[in-house]
Amino acid sequence: MKDHRTMKVYLSGEIHTDWRDRIIEGAKGLDLSFAAPVTDHAASDDCGVEILGAEPDKFWHDRKGAQVNAIRTRHGIETADIVVVRFGEKYKQWNAAFDAGYAAALGKSLIILHPEEHDHALKEVDAAALAVARTPEQVVGVLRYVLTGTLG
Amino acid sequence: MKDHRTMKVYLSGEIHTDWRDRIIEGAKGLDLSFAAPVTDHAASDDCGVEILGAEPDKFWHDRKGAQVNAIRTRHGIETADIVVVRFGEKYKQWNAAFDAGYAAALGKSLIILHPEEHDHALKEVDAAALAVARTPEQVVGVLRYVLTGTLG
Amino acid sequence: MKDHRTMKVYLSGEIHTDWRDRIIEGAKGLDLSFAAPVTDHAASDDCGVEILGAEPDKFWHDRKGAQVNAIRTRHGIETADIVVVRFGEKYKQWNAAFDAGYAAALGKSLIILHPEEHDHALKEVDAAALAVARTPEQVVGVLRYVLTGTLG
Amino acid sequence: MKDHRTMKVYLSGEIHTDWRDRIIEGAKGLDLSFAAPVTDHAASDDCGVEILGAEPDKFWHDRKGAQVNAIRTRHGIETADIVVVRFGEKYKQWNAAFDAGYAAALGKSLIILHPEEHDHALKEVDAAALAVARTPEQVVGVLRYVLTGTLG
Amino acid sequence: MKDHRTMKVYLSGEIHTDWRDRIIEGAKGLDLSFAAPVTDHAASDDCGVEILGAEPDKFWHDRKGAQVNAIRTRHGIETADIVVVRFGEKYKQWNAAFDAGYAAALGKSLIILHPEEHDHALKEVDAAALAVARTPEQVVGVLRYVLTGTLG
Amino acid sequence: MKDHRTMKVYLSGEIHTDWRDRIIEGAKGLDLSFAAPVTDHAASDDCGVEILGAEPDKFWHDRKGAQVNAIRTRHGIETADIVVVRFGEKYKQWNAAFDAGYAAALGKSLIILHPEEHDHALKEVDAAALAVARTPEQVVGVLRYVLTGTLG
Amino acid sequence: MKDHRTMKVYLSGEIHTDWRDRIIEGAKGLDLSFAAPVTDHAASDDCGVEILGAEPDKFWHDRKGAQVNAIRTRHGIETADIVVVRFGEKYKQWNAAFDAGYAAALGKSLIILHPEEHDHALKEVDAAALAVARTPEQVVGVLRYVLTGTLG
Amino acid sequence: MKDHRTMKVYLSGEIHTDWRDRIIEGAKGLDLSFAAPVTDHAASDDCGVEILGAEPDKFWHDRKGAQVNAIRTRHGIETADIVVVRFGEKYKQWNAAFDAGYAAALGKSLIILHPEEHDHALKEVDAAALAVARTPEQVVGVLRYVLTGTLG
Repeated sequence: MKDHRTMKVYLSGEIHTDWRDRIIEGAKGLDLSFAAPVTDHAASDDCGVEILGAEPDKFWHDRKGAQVNAIRTRHGIETADIVVVRFGEKYKQWNAAFDAGYAAALGKSLIILHPEEHDHALKEVDAAALAVARTPEQVVGVLRYVLTGTLG
Repeated sequence: MKDHRTMKVYLSGEIHTDWRDRIIEGAKGLDLSFAAPVTDHAASDDCGVEILGAEPDKFWHDRKGAQVNAIRTRHGIETADIVVVRFGEKYKQWNAAFDAGYAAALGKSLIILHPEEHDHALKEVDAAALAVARTPEQVVGVLRYVLTGTLG
Repeated sequence: MKDHRTMKVYLSGEIHTDWRDRIIEGAKGLDLSFAAPVTDHAASDDCGVEILGAEPDKFWHDRKGAQVNAIRTRHGIETADIVVVRFGEKYKQWNAAFDAGYAAALGKSLIILHPEEHDHALKEVDAAALAVARTPEQVVGVLRYVLTGTLG
Repeated sequence: MKDHRTMKVYLSGEIHTDWRDRIIEGAKGLDLSFAAPVTDHAASDDCGVEILGAEPDKFWHDRKGAQVNAIRTRHGIETADIVVVRFGEKYKQWNAAFDAGYAAALGKSLIILHPEEHDHALKEVDAAALAVARTPEQVVGVLRYVLTGTLG
Repeated sequence: MKDHRTMKVYLSGEIHTDWRDRIIEGAKGLDLSFAAPVTDHAASDDCGVEILGAEPDKFWHDRKGAQVNAIRTRHGIETADIVVVRFGEKYKQWNAAFDAGYAAALGKSLIILHPEEHDHALKEVDAAALAVARTPEQVVGVLRYVLTGTLG
Repeated sequence: MKDHRTMKVYLSGEIHTDWRDRIIEGAKGLDLSFAAPVTDHAASDDCGVEILGAEPDKFWHDRKGAQVNAIRTRHGIETADIVVVRFGEKYKQWNAAFDAGYAAALGKSLIILHPEEHDHALKEVDAAALAVARTPEQVVGVLRYVLTGTLG
Repeated sequence: MKDHRTMKVYLSGEIHTDWRDRIIEGAKGLDLSFAAPVTDHAASDDCGVEILGAEPDKFWHDRKGAQVNAIRTRHGIETADIVVVRFGEKYKQWNAAFDAGYAAALGKSLIILHPEEHDHALKEVDAAALAVARTPEQVVGVLRYVLTGTLG
Repeated sequence: MKDHRTMKVYLSGEIHTDWRDRIIEGAKGLDLSFAAPVTDHAASDDCGVEILGAEPDKFWHDRKGAQVNAIRTRHGIETADIVVVRFGEKYKQWNAAFDAGYAAALGKSLIILHPEEHDHALKEVDAAALAVARTPEQVVGVLRYVLTGTLG
């Protein structure tokens, strides 16, 4: 018997590598729907002032953009069944951890994707997750199994 | 990657100008669904007594109508992802502010649309919003960005 | 502008007259979906023991049936946007009042349909409703207005 | 070991006999707190117009009173752990059934108290309850057992 | 029997007359607890910049203050059983209507206090309330009745 | 009148007999959608380590698998309208009872399927259910009645 | 700094050994409040018929008792911050697993206490827990650390 | 008029400086209650294995500890009215951002405390907050104002 309902997956976090593409490509043929934040870094930083008017103060420039992005981000997380959060090698990535906490509080199924070097620093985040993966292909493996019940 | 899920937008507030039409027209081609209160002023005022029977007392005349309208309004807000509330130059518009509070308490993404002259009087309402816009075109800009990740 | 989303309507209460048919017939062409309890009185009374095995004690005979019916009733109310509850001239109709209370606690939009003779006895129920109607045609009038914004 | 937390009990329904007094008297010494609707029939009927101003139309006279009473009733039910609903021999008692439905939707523990003659008419209400009692003393028995774990 | 549980009342809205004092004074001896927004107009306007640092732009000056006030306001509404909202003769008072909507969405018992001249403009707000009062003394009357079941 | 909305059914519990097939086969033609846990015992036990990497310690081997399976199981229960839980003759089947408790707390309509020999041991689980069935065909009978209102 | 708020602990499951006493004894001096099901086996089995009247059919005899016990059990779980569930060496203990699932769905912090021989059979239950303990003393250790931040 | 209800404050984040002490000291005399994570770094890292048994694999060593800490952390956030999250100059501090997201999803009032150098990296976190402070004294200022309505 097959679970024929689509699952919705939100792909949060690091935007500098092709991990989202690898998951979406690898999951082809599965009944999944994907959403993600805006991954165009410049657009994401400037959307607030570009659309709603310039701000001389960088703090409010950032605030305006972050709130416009929040419309998309919250919708993505709140409507998701599964939230995948990727932590890369570099940067603070506090918004990724924030999304993970947000998703955890809503009871979403969390999959955390990160290299082993971050294991200790991410232990609280990992502890709220149902899977910790090292590669996008492992995430695909989890998604395939969850939908189809088959390994590989 | 594209977030292909439709977002539902509720357009609350001022009913004397064409701001709703401008947003709907400007958002053509985007995967959005719009809802709004009844904007026919006379119908909105008299729906209760027209359908359910006359009331000699104006207070209960208004009550009957307001409750029938509430069936539509609450459904519109509760099923929305984004609630846009427009405050015009005139009138008390307490129902617009009420809708904004209602939407805020439900955790909806709020966009408030109003001229600068109302900035101080609307500061509590704006503070609960994710965007404050001055023109319907700016609202369209936010909606387009949120759905497509592109600016203009 | 048109609110194009379907609304789901649950028709609870009295099962001895054709009020449900008159509402469904009158609402033809509107984007509405209707649900209702099982209105076959004998089936409704005996479903528990017919399906799950006889009970010598009438109390448990009734319990088994009432719980099987509750699967349908609760689903109908919980997935509804609008719950119409009809109280007829006869019988205790406590399940109708129970459904009204259940729907009220879930924040559903309530329309109560009953003759004037029950006004005082139903005052607490009416006070939780957004409309009190006297005829099925008035209910249709409310539903049409709520969906289309037009009177008649 | 003793469950030392107070339980809050709301006593809804019939107001013409001394069943509430018998429960409260019988439960003396147990760590219980009781609440109830206003049981002064005249005050309950007229509170709205007495406090907020007369209404010539009996329908709105009743509405005003019912809504003022609802402030107390809803608070009583919403803060209760256990809701006892008593159906007497006479009257429609739709507000009792409404309260039972309201409490059921909120997941409260329901105890229904009624004579056997109402068994069939109350089967849907009973089916939502955790106990059906015939006498106030049985309700006391349930409350004592639930708090202390002892029978009699 | 007496409902001995304290009710918490939040007094929202107009800050230029002594209506809050009259309610608190009139309700002496009742088991009520009151909360309210900061009613010192200057402190309320400037709290954000006074505590967290100046803003050259009035819009953000206001935002900072409105958000600090929101910590108090939301706590007051969210922990309240009853929310009283007063609309005075003057000013836009959109924050009052916003609070009313916020409270309504949370299912709080609403009492609206305003002169008759605002009846039509406030019809949607009144329609969400359980009582509409004209004087602080009427609000006291409702509170006393709800707690004690006695009229005057 | 027909309740045309699809109901979603989750089939939890025992995986060694063909009860799921008999229900799905028997319910052909009804507007139902079914979901279930992975019923391939080996895949279910090893999914965690197969996809995410081996664990030398059996406890963590099991943990990894159980958490991956939880992504599917929780989604199945949380999106279901009706949860059927089957207890077979053998094994501890604690995950079946866990699922039943999980579904009960979410307010799902529960149908428990088990032989009479387990009646006493399952009395708390049965007491949270709306139907206790002995055969898959009885479950089909309940589902057919709930959807169509007809017996047999 | 000390977290001075009391935590409420519900002790569910096995009733044949003194594990509850050992936890309560060991936790003396900590700001904890404990609750538990009725552990008098005979009273627990017969409470329904003893209080509410005999049932000739054992199935309904059990149902009546299980539902009366549910008033206590659900209150205990729903008001708890931490739910400890103990699985002993013998018996089916499906109500223990049911309680664990119920608590998990409500987002309670779960501690599961069982011998290693049950590790595989309890893997889904353990996977929903924040701690798996082998002895009551370990549970005390967790409670002490959570409250005081000290080890031993 | 004074808001006499205690507010509960959770102090999340950085554990290497005395910011918590400065807030608690500064807030002396205010009706506030504080909670925090375990700030003894070694205890926090090792609590899982110290209490529940050693793990040879560092990943599971960390998991055990993180989950035991989660019992305290979640209780602290879930029972708080206000959550203050401090980001220091050093370390990844992903658990701080996780807590902020968790609190935001629960609708808690968030105050974020960090130096200006983190403004851009924390813009999404700040955008979910009601106040961004630079010093513990500013946090005290906000708490004092929120409780007493006075500045300084």
